[in-house]
Amino acid sequence: MSFIGQEIHNFATEIFPFNRSLTGEGVRDTLLKIQTQITDLKIDHYPSGKEVFDWVVPKEWKVSEAFIISPEGKKICNFSDNNLHLVGYSVPYRGKLSLNDLQPYLYSIPDQPDAIPYITSYYEPRWGFCLTHNQRVELSDGVYEIVVDTSLFDGVMNFGELLIPGKSEKEIFLSTYICHPSMANNEISGPSVTTFLSKWIKSKKNREYSYRIIFIPETIGSISYIAHNLKTLKEKVFAGFNITCIGDDRCYSFLPSRDGNTISDVVAKHILKHTDKEFLQYSWLDRGSDERQYCSPGVDLPISSIMRSKYGEYPEYHTSLDNLISVVTPEGLNGGYWAIRNSIEALENNSIYKVKMFCEPQLGKRGLYPTLSNKRDYKTTRTLTNFISYCNSKNTLIDIAEIIGVPVWELYDISKNLEVNGIIEKC
Amino acid sequence: MSFIGQEIHNFATEIFPFNRSLTGEGVRDTLLKIQTQITDLKIDHYPSGKEVFDWVVPKEWKVSEAFIISPEGKKICNFSDNNLHLVGYSVPYRGKLSLNDLQPYLYSIPDQPDAIPYITSYYEPRWGFCLTHNQRVELSDGVYEIVVDTSLFDGVMNFGELLIPGKSEKEIFLSTYICHPSMANNEISGPSVTTFLSKWIKSKKNREYSYRIIFIPETIGSISYIAHNLKTLKEKVFAGFNITCIGDDRCYSFLPSRDGNTISDVVAKHILKHTDKEFLQYSWLDRGSDERQYCSPGVDLPISSIMRSKYGEYPEYHTSLDNLISVVTPEGLNGGYWAIRNSIEALENNSIYKVKMFCEPQLGKRGLYPTLSNKRDYKTTRTLTNFISYCNSKNTLIDIAEIIGVPVWELYDISKNLEVNGIIEKC
Amino acid sequence: MSFIGQEIHNFATEIFPFNRSLTGEGVRDTLLKIQTQITDLKIDHYPSGKEVFDWVVPKEWKVSEAFIISPEGKKICNFSDNNLHLVGYSVPYRGKLSLNDLQPYLYSIPDQPDAIPYITSYYEPRWGFCLTHNQRVELSDGVYEIVVDTSLFDGVMNFGELLIPGKSEKEIFLSTYICHPSMANNEISGPSVTTFLSKWIKSKKNREYSYRIIFIPETIGSISYIAHNLKTLKEKVFAGFNITCIGDDRCYSFLPSRDGNTISDVVAKHILKHTDKEFLQYSWLDRGSDERQYCSPGVDLPISSIMRSKYGEYPEYHTSLDNLISVVTPEGLNGGYWAIRNSIEALENNSIYKVKMFCEPQLGKRGLYPTLSNKRDYKTTRTLTNFISYCNSKNTLIDIAEIIGVPVWELYDISKNLEVNGIIEKC
Repeated sequence: MSFIGQEIHNFATEIFPFNRSLTGEGVRDTLLKIQTQITDLKIDHYPSGKEVFDWVVPKEWKVSEAFIISPEGKKICNFSDNNLHLVGYSVPYRGKLSLNDLQPYLYSIPDQPDAIPYITSYYEPRWGFCLTHNQRVELSDGVYEIVVDTSLFDGVMNFGELLIPGKSEKEIFLSTYICHPSMANNEISGPSVTTFLSKWIKSKKNREYSYRIIFIPETIGSISYIAHNLKTLKEKVFAGFNITCIGDDRCYSFLPSRDGNTISDVVAKHILKHTDKEFLQYSWLDRGSDERQYCSPGVDLPISSIMRSKYGEYPEYHTSLDNLISVVTPEGLNGGYWAIRNSIEALENNSIYKVKMFCEPQLGKRGLYPTLSNKRDYKTTRTLTNFISYCNSKNTLIDIAEIIGVPVWELYDISKNLEVNGIIEKC
Repeated sequence: MSFIGQEIHNFATEIFPFNRSLTGEGVRDTLLKIQTQITDLKIDHYPSGKEVFDWVVPKEWKVSEAFIISPEGKKICNFSDNNLHLVGYSVPYRGKLSLNDLQPYLYSIPDQPDAIPYITSYYEPRWGFCLTHNQRVELSDGVYEIVVDTSLFDGVMNFGELLIPGKSEKEIFLSTYICHPSMANNEISGPSVTTFLSKWIKSKKNREYSYRIIFIPETIGSISYIAHNLKTLKEKVFAGFNITCIGDDRCYSFLPSRDGNTISDVVAKHILKHTDKEFLQYSWLDRGSDERQYCSPGVDLPISSIMRSKYGEYPEYHTSLDNLISVVTPEGLNGGYWAIRNSIEALENNSIYKVKMFCEPQLGKRGLYPTLSNKRDYKTTRTLTNFISYCNSKNTLIDIAEIIGVPVWELYDISKNLEVNGIIEKC
Repeated sequence: MSFIGQEIHNFATEIFPFNRSLTGEGVRDTLLKIQTQITDLKIDHYPSGKEVFDWVVPKEWKVSEAFIISPEGKKICNFSDNNLHLVGYSVPYRGKLSLNDLQPYLYSIPDQPDAIPYITSYYEPRWGFCLTHNQRVELSDGVYEIVVDTSLFDGVMNFGELLIPGKSEKEIFLSTYICHPSMANNEISGPSVTTFLSKWIKSKKNREYSYRIIFIPETIGSISYIAHNLKTLKEKVFAGFNITCIGDDRCYSFLPSRDGNTISDVVAKHILKHTDKEFLQYSWLDRGSDERQYCSPGVDLPISSIMRSKYGEYPEYHTSLDNLISVVTPEGLNGGYWAIRNSIEALENNSIYKVKMFCEPQLGKRGLYPTLSNKRDYKTTRTLTNFISYCNSKNTLIDIAEIIGVPVWELYDISKNLEVNGIIEKC
């Protein structure tokens, strides 16, 4: 497992500053940057106003400038300094307000006084500014001039889609989101890791499965994508992962599909257990990302989530403290990348085998077993013989790895070697 | 949950003194009192000698008087003081016996010296007297005159039956017994609580299900009732409870049906867990009441038992100490009443729902979700969204309550509200 | 359970000294001794060179003499003193070697300096000698004369087979091996206990099932037997045990069939739990005897192993220390014999019953229940009534014993008594 974390971190640094939201320039800029890495990424869109199930694709949001001028004449809460300063989807506003009248439009976190919170108001017209609590308490009485030069108009909601064919039409589905402004673990780690996973998948020879990889706004994006592709998704997708919060180095986390019994659940738990036996297992009741749509009744896709520190569970979540320096690191991104890559590799290799003969094969004559019987050798070659004993036309490679207590990757060479030696064959 | 325990306790006090047994006046008096509360209770009977499966309906037992005159000329062990003094189903006897010869006919409990034990001999002709051990050890040598003026004759075994129709012909079955003389938790709590449950069920509007409620002698009564109604019971009854030992305030107890996997088991455990997480779970091997018949092989009705202190498991059981003062209390009866009523309510509401749309519904536009996204709101409205995520045409309300870890009663308003809002519908 | 351990130990002492191996005189001598106990044992063979699945029946091995003459002129490592001194299947060799050149042909165990190890080289031509480490370190420099007067030739591989008919053609299969030279727990305990089990089975009246009992060389023997009888074995065998390491008195051990869910697994665990609740449960991953063949994919026979100290798990294993004095004892053999006999008896009695009437039978009128109801009698006759309550045409006797928590042998008399009394009948 080579170290790819620095490369992913460099790319994350490039797309970090864009003002992502459900719609708009920031989303498009992010997708264009990803396209520099994955040239055949298709950048597509759904038009504002389009009905998708119970929802409507929102208007496009554009920010020209947004700031407040303090009684002292200082420009504060400037969107161009940090896009978190402006409440997401703020409607235009210009006016002068006393500090008292301004307060209901300000958001800060008293017990994280250094953090700018991340606030949005997608479905109710509002404007507002976010700032650190330290800054807020220093605000003097007087009149403040507010400039929110934004516009909301019928435009498009963009997303990226990448289809990579394999031997089978069955698909592994990867979904990540691109709708949060400058925050690192949630969210820029997600599209960054997914970009590099896409590059690896494209480079992989003899892919057993096809791949569907999408970069979309959370919730309304996944709902829109499902609305336009439900039949195909239900027919083709047999496994997949929602990729988010995959960049810090504090822990590994798992969140299951709704019923928790799909191959995506099995493989993710297997890989995480052998990556870090202390990995955290969340429940469906802790969900909060696009699995809410993919696993909703009637949609029922087999999607689980492999994460590092889960959204909502680390102190910097949804604030300006979620950055690429102290939170998301090359090591963190590297670990997240490999956890998902190893899971995909396990799906690709998850064949069912049968032994081609009755009783144990004679391994000794093929040089696969010691020729001198000796109590000291009793436990050698156990993984090999254990594996063979479960090649009964029913167990998959992951099933066997679970039963015999080894990481599935230890079985890749063994199974190939036994296949070459004519001892087992794929069912 | 209003307080109804005092009213039940008052009623229990009225029926406490009757000399209940398998048959006879005490049973009829009890049923007539219950009829004052439930006017449409049908008082019915099976004739002595009637064969019911492996059993025979016993003769009717009548006690005129029964006592012993001591050498000092004192009337002791007088049935008219306490009906527990006479061994149940004692055959007539008159005679004079020395203390030594009398001893084999006396029953007391050395380690509960204040208690008169409850003893019966239904299937072997015997007579005998029960008394406190303190009294017994004070008996002086000398001649005792015994008067057991009883008669056993071909008569009837009475029982009460109440059928309450609902929308469905499917029935919830409640059974309680009326064959023990003056003891409180086992047994007068059972028919008292069942009487008040019957009144509530009758008053309930839009009953989903029909109800079959019987007041019978234990064992021979339930066997006779099954013998006369087996086909109907097996066709109609989908859930039910045996109601006994439901009046003290020390604990809640659960005893399952034979295989422990019926809806009556599921609902009882769910309600008891949310009533008192320390409730006691017994096994089928601890059984001892009419579930022995209802869940016998071939009968196989889905009957479990919700109790307070279980028969055989509290010190006053089957003695004169099991009274309406120190053992059965208004609080105890109230808790027992509500545990069963809540279980019935849960059965009535245990629908299967499906979401009427793909993906999550947009709750915000219906005023069911906050419009401002903020990390502080992350866990609000979780019960609502968790519930929706499991409305997949398969889970019942109780299934979902179990999965998401809330009492099912928290889902009644939520499910109705979502139905009214067009988000879910019953399957 | 009478004490038969001394008799088995005496027999084990008789067959202990033979030079058993995969083939040869020692095997035949062992089978002939067993035939003195079981006169209808069929001694059969497969010829050298015969292909059996992935294997070939080996040449017959004959040892005329084998020893080393030390520089001092002393005859050491003499095969006629202890057959463990010669590496099993040693090819002939005569020559003179310096101590240094001899060392690669010597085998000893430094941390068990008093033990002669047991070493074989079945599938690679080799010669060698085994000796205690104490002896080895005393060897002086100088020239050693080596005599290995053995021969390997086309002959036969012998085995014993005993078929005992029963009412049903369904078979219980017992397999034990006879290919290890003078070692007690592994192996002579196996054929000795199996010999006495065979005698008991033959003497048993009204056998429900037929029996197939084989005494074979391990691995190549069981593979050959399967190769010649696969169809029959798969059609007839419904339960069975591999019998090995059944003679010491330190513990009981269980090793399951591959999937661990056959009746042989259920019965063995049940009997062992009620024999010694501390019995050791191994997993399929700990296997090491003929279950490797019987439970291999495609063969899939329901064979589990009941053992005392398992092969590979006790210090004397595969050395000269595994003897009939300090390791295998009459008590150990007796316990092992009864564990398997009780398991077979449980299989013979494992009927499914149904109650012939609805509701509980009236046990009192048949003298099976106390006639006086008294709280003190509350728990008497519980096994009886518990048993009846589960006679539902589905549960086997062992199922019921497991559910109600009693050893199955407590149900033999109860079930017969109830059957005689017309209360239950076999399904």
